[in-house]
Amino acid sequence: MQISKGVEWAAHAAALMSALPPGRGLRAEALARYHGVPGPYMAKQMQALSKAGIVHAARGKHGGYRLARPAGEITLWDVMTAIEGRKPAFTCTEIRQNGPCGAEPEQCRQKCAIAAAFHAAEAAFRDHLQAVSLVEIAAGVVADSSPDHLRDVGRWLEKEAVALG
Amino acid sequence: MQISKGVEWAAHAAALMSALPPGRGLRAEALARYHGVPGPYMAKQMQALSKAGIVHAARGKHGGYRLARPAGEITLWDVMTAIEGRKPAFTCTEIRQNGPCGAEPEQCRQKCAIAAAFHAAEAAFRDHLQAVSLVEIAAGVVADSSPDHLRDVGRWLEKEAVALG
Repeated sequence: MQISKGVEWAAHAAALMSALPPGRGLRAEALARYHGVPGPYMAKQMQALSKAGIVHAARGKHGGYRLARPAGEITLWDVMTAIEGRKPAFTCTEIRQNGPCGAEPEQCRQKCAIAAAFHAAEAAFRDHLQAVSLVEIAAGVVADSSPDHLRDVGRWLEKEAVALG
Repeated sequence: MQISKGVEWAAHAAALMSALPPGRGLRAEALARYHGVPGPYMAKQMQALSKAGIVHAARGKHGGYRLARPAGEITLWDVMTAIEGRKPAFTCTEIRQNGPCGAEPEQCRQKCAIAAAFHAAEAAFRDHLQAVSLVEIAAGVVADSSPDHLRDVGRWLEKEAVALG
């Protein structure tokens, strides 16, 4: 069970965008450069966030990405499912209905005990990520950062943020 | 984030083995046939359960698999990690240390807020699966089954279970 690197990248990029002033955005190339990761792969994650309505993409010469909703309304669950999709991690293929002692379909109206346990575990996982918004992430980054580091980030944003057309 | 089909198969096979009388086992081929799945792939899952100490493999003519521990001491978490490994689903690659504003390593002694949130969510997922043993799974199967179905399963086990050498 693996979560793709794209989720990590998208979460960091979204947290950085929460620090943008209103009306400003960042190009995918700048987001990639800030995080030291390949541009095309970061662009792919931004397209997925855009498709999921998490970021707004302004196209053209004055193009760039900004958050499409307040940072407090975007959770890590939103970011993860934008990248990974919403398919449950555990897929029940109803193998209890197979073979010489296969259960009849009418005996299988309740979820199989194994699927039920995995889906309950996944719900707990989801609940945790739904409780963490970009505001909490950004607050965590600020708490862990030195004043010098925060000043550098502010200057970088000032230099790189584009006025969205 | 996907859990492999092998986890589903191994969990069902382990739950079935919890119904074996002492000293008896099932061949991987019989476990595959019972669940209507390909033999070689079921054999691969049984080898993984054996490596993890969940089942005991008796080799040779009178070979077969039985649970290596009491069913109440084998959880769905044990089964899942036997098949999928214990690597966390979310891997933090410390991208906060990258790029023009990369944090210094000494500022990164605390886990990054994003990694911390994912790992807390994974811990909740794990806690759920660790609370469900093969005894609970088997009880769920029994509760969902008709008396006829349970009699069929009992007869099948009587016919297929081998005395382990």
